[in-house]
Amino acid sequence: MTKTWTLEEIAQRVGATLRGEGDHVIDGLAPLTRAQANQLSFLANSLYLPALTTTHAGAVLLRPEDAAGFQGRALIVGNPYAAYAQVSHYFDRTPKGETGIHPQACVSASSQIDPTASVAAFVTVADGAVIGPGSVIEAGAFVGARVQIGKDCRIRANAVVHHDCVLGDRVTIHSGAVIGDDGFGFAPSEGRWNKIAQIGRVILHDDVDIGSGTTVDRGALDDTLIHEGVIIDNLVHIGHNVEIGAHTAIAGCCGISGSTKLGAHCVLAGGVGLVGHIEVCDNVQITGMSMITKSITKPGSYSSGMAFERTENWRKSAVRVRGLDEMARRLRELETIVKQLTSPQ
Amino acid sequence: MTKTWTLEEIAQRVGATLRGEGDHVIDGLAPLTRAQANQLSFLANSLYLPALTTTHAGAVLLRPEDAAGFQGRALIVGNPYAAYAQVSHYFDRTPKGETGIHPQACVSASSQIDPTASVAAFVTVADGAVIGPGSVIEAGAFVGARVQIGKDCRIRANAVVHHDCVLGDRVTIHSGAVIGDDGFGFAPSEGRWNKIAQIGRVILHDDVDIGSGTTVDRGALDDTLIHEGVIIDNLVHIGHNVEIGAHTAIAGCCGISGSTKLGAHCVLAGGVGLVGHIEVCDNVQITGMSMITKSITKPGSYSSGMAFERTENWRKSAVRVRGLDEMARRLRELETIVKQLTSPQ
Amino acid sequence: MTKTWTLEEIAQRVGATLRGEGDHVIDGLAPLTRAQANQLSFLANSLYLPALTTTHAGAVLLRPEDAAGFQGRALIVGNPYAAYAQVSHYFDRTPKGETGIHPQACVSASSQIDPTASVAAFVTVADGAVIGPGSVIEAGAFVGARVQIGKDCRIRANAVVHHDCVLGDRVTIHSGAVIGDDGFGFAPSEGRWNKIAQIGRVILHDDVDIGSGTTVDRGALDDTLIHEGVIIDNLVHIGHNVEIGAHTAIAGCCGISGSTKLGAHCVLAGGVGLVGHIEVCDNVQITGMSMITKSITKPGSYSSGMAFERTENWRKSAVRVRGLDEMARRLRELETIVKQLTSPQ
Repeated sequence: MTKTWTLEEIAQRVGATLRGEGDHVIDGLAPLTRAQANQLSFLANSLYLPALTTTHAGAVLLRPEDAAGFQGRALIVGNPYAAYAQVSHYFDRTPKGETGIHPQACVSASSQIDPTASVAAFVTVADGAVIGPGSVIEAGAFVGARVQIGKDCRIRANAVVHHDCVLGDRVTIHSGAVIGDDGFGFAPSEGRWNKIAQIGRVILHDDVDIGSGTTVDRGALDDTLIHEGVIIDNLVHIGHNVEIGAHTAIAGCCGISGSTKLGAHCVLAGGVGLVGHIEVCDNVQITGMSMITKSITKPGSYSSGMAFERTENWRKSAVRVRGLDEMARRLRELETIVKQLTSPQ
Repeated sequence: MTKTWTLEEIAQRVGATLRGEGDHVIDGLAPLTRAQANQLSFLANSLYLPALTTTHAGAVLLRPEDAAGFQGRALIVGNPYAAYAQVSHYFDRTPKGETGIHPQACVSASSQIDPTASVAAFVTVADGAVIGPGSVIEAGAFVGARVQIGKDCRIRANAVVHHDCVLGDRVTIHSGAVIGDDGFGFAPSEGRWNKIAQIGRVILHDDVDIGSGTTVDRGALDDTLIHEGVIIDNLVHIGHNVEIGAHTAIAGCCGISGSTKLGAHCVLAGGVGLVGHIEVCDNVQITGMSMITKSITKPGSYSSGMAFERTENWRKSAVRVRGLDEMARRLRELETIVKQLTSPQ
Repeated sequence: MTKTWTLEEIAQRVGATLRGEGDHVIDGLAPLTRAQANQLSFLANSLYLPALTTTHAGAVLLRPEDAAGFQGRALIVGNPYAAYAQVSHYFDRTPKGETGIHPQACVSASSQIDPTASVAAFVTVADGAVIGPGSVIEAGAFVGARVQIGKDCRIRANAVVHHDCVLGDRVTIHSGAVIGDDGFGFAPSEGRWNKIAQIGRVILHDDVDIGSGTTVDRGALDDTLIHEGVIIDNLVHIGHNVEIGAHTAIAGCCGISGSTKLGAHCVLAGGVGLVGHIEVCDNVQITGMSMITKSITKPGSYSSGMAFERTENWRKSAVRVRGLDEMARRLRELETIVKQLTSPQ
């Protein structure tokens, strides 16, 4: 079923220098430690060099400097990890989606669906929505009124894109993600919360990837903007009117509060929280589970949170943190006294 | 397509004093900095007063005290933010839902659906469910057996409400939210977890708003209770048998563990966690990403978590926290010694 | 509608010693404080002993040592909580699912669905999928190509299981959960993120329970593995190539990053984060909202995070934490000086 490839074919496609038999056949990918003669592997990190000497892989994607000490078939390339990323798609068994509109879909007569697009069963495409060439809408997904979806996008099973949102080309929305539901906007009045209609949209530029279960809220007045090439993992919450710069990566379980601007080429590790109405500049890295409470204006790495330890020790430390201000005061007093003791009379 | 409004019409509806041409036509809303002559804006916070002098807005909702220095058309009102909340709905393009039952829905013969309600394609309404007047069930939503939904509720695309849950009037469940799935109840026995059937329900009182991707578990024996006017943002987890008091607001990514009672008029910022079986009184505010491990009996603001800093500095601080108990001991020893040194012999 | 039970029937089924009338009829369960004569209750924790003296319960499941002081009807058993877990299912009103394939489902001709299984409306069962005896696929769920589902599984409304994933017997996937969507794998190259096809699967062994809104990503090359009897609460993120040992319990809002191995019989409280590529041994407990940044090789309880306090006090402590390294240095200096002062000249 799975297509097979010769090493020569793969070498040509990834621009690698081939060492060994070009007609050796590959039908899968595997890590160095587990790969067999019919599988291709890769070495992207010199840390794993020892595994090279024992691997049974049919061939290995690696850098020139790592190829020297290796006896087996090699595909020598500058960036083996990127080459592996490219080759991985040749062995991907994700169903492509059948072209055309499934008879059990519900498609508005006023929508425009490109004939090369795929709309599966139980998909709703509402009034005025536009779906571009090659885009695949998997089963149970919802495409709201006047939504625009570019070419070669993929809306996975049971994902939701609400009305008026705009997706560029090659955008992926994974299962269970919700794009363009209402932002959390309520005006307090006499002890009650009055709902503010959220009349902005969500704009996802080209090559954006939104993880499963992630929610991106529509703007209150202006739009929520996710720029080109941004990748967002699962169960991330993006509040209304957030703007995320190009090629930023956000790991799972992060939360970005409303109206915050995150720069380009940033990396947020898992569980990070950003409060609302701040700006984080380009090229910032934030380590796991940190809370960012103020704007960041200089590139670099930022953190908060505590190191973990045995619970019995942690209990003591955690209690001490509460007393830190008093400890600091006592330290200062001691310093004053000791200074008097040691200073010439 | 969008309806237009004259300033006079808007002034009447929000109870504002109009200053300027009552026949000026408005077809949208925008922030002060971006608004054009055809748009209405608002000033809710005196911090943004400078923007008043340069705005091109067709008119501005503002307080009497802020109107003095403004030359343009004004709608003068005591609470401009609440007035903006009201007006925002006039420009909301969220589809209203077509009255009646879509032919591609699956509706049990034993359910009762008000003729003014809307049931979209791919919606399941199970045996014995009741849907009240004006309620809208969007595409792909699931309404379980014997669920009761009041009037003017909205169950958004692909949301789920499981069997026997009860929704009051004007309740909104956003996309991907799950109401009344099983609580996390298992009895340990001989190294295994034995599932406990969750036979309680979820009761959502009037005007509750549940964010997208949020999960509210049904009770184990008693019901999970969310009182009137509670608003909950996205990706929040509410455990079984939790009770949340009226008009409390919970921001995104919070988690409330089983059997905890949260009071009325509380505000939880994003990412807050409450352990199980505690009680938090009315009028408590909790700042972002705090963990609340004990009951709170006095109104006020509570926090935990650490300030963020450069990762290189944070590493040092985080390690020091572990040594805090020992530092405290050493400080105490020094104090004793210094006291002896300074006390009269 | 609900079946009723005599105390004798229940005693026989849970292996309890009955004290009192065996023909007393029970039609429900309730906590001690609320139970009436027609309801059964239980005492699992001696903390609640006082409630025994005032309860109106028709009968109580309790341990021999607690039965002595109780006058009412008793079902005496070694593990009352496990007995309650068993009895709870007799009063469960969760619909069982109708046997057979609903006419509004979309089932591939190449799938194999056992005649005793239930497939509801708006379910997709894709090419080559296999669904075993007694399994129930609720409305709107998605079963991808070549997915294997064992016997007596339950895929709840709007849950998703993507292609090639494997479920053992008695596996439950709650609503909105997503199994086998892509892991967060991208190769950086020239400032862009290149998608790596995720060609591994997710394997869920027997008796695994996955909470609503939880996401379990498929492996990049190898499979993501969740072993027998693991229970996972709501809104948990399990990254690609994670492995979780048998009978481990994970509470809501946790995140486990890619390639991390978590042992058997562990318990993670809510909101815990594990970084990627670490190993946690068997029998580890982690308290709420802790971040685990390194492998753990010894069983026991681990924690991080700070105790909460009044925000005004917390602000002072949080700032002091940043200055901890300097405080430690000053303390050391003082110690040196004081030592000199007190040492014999």
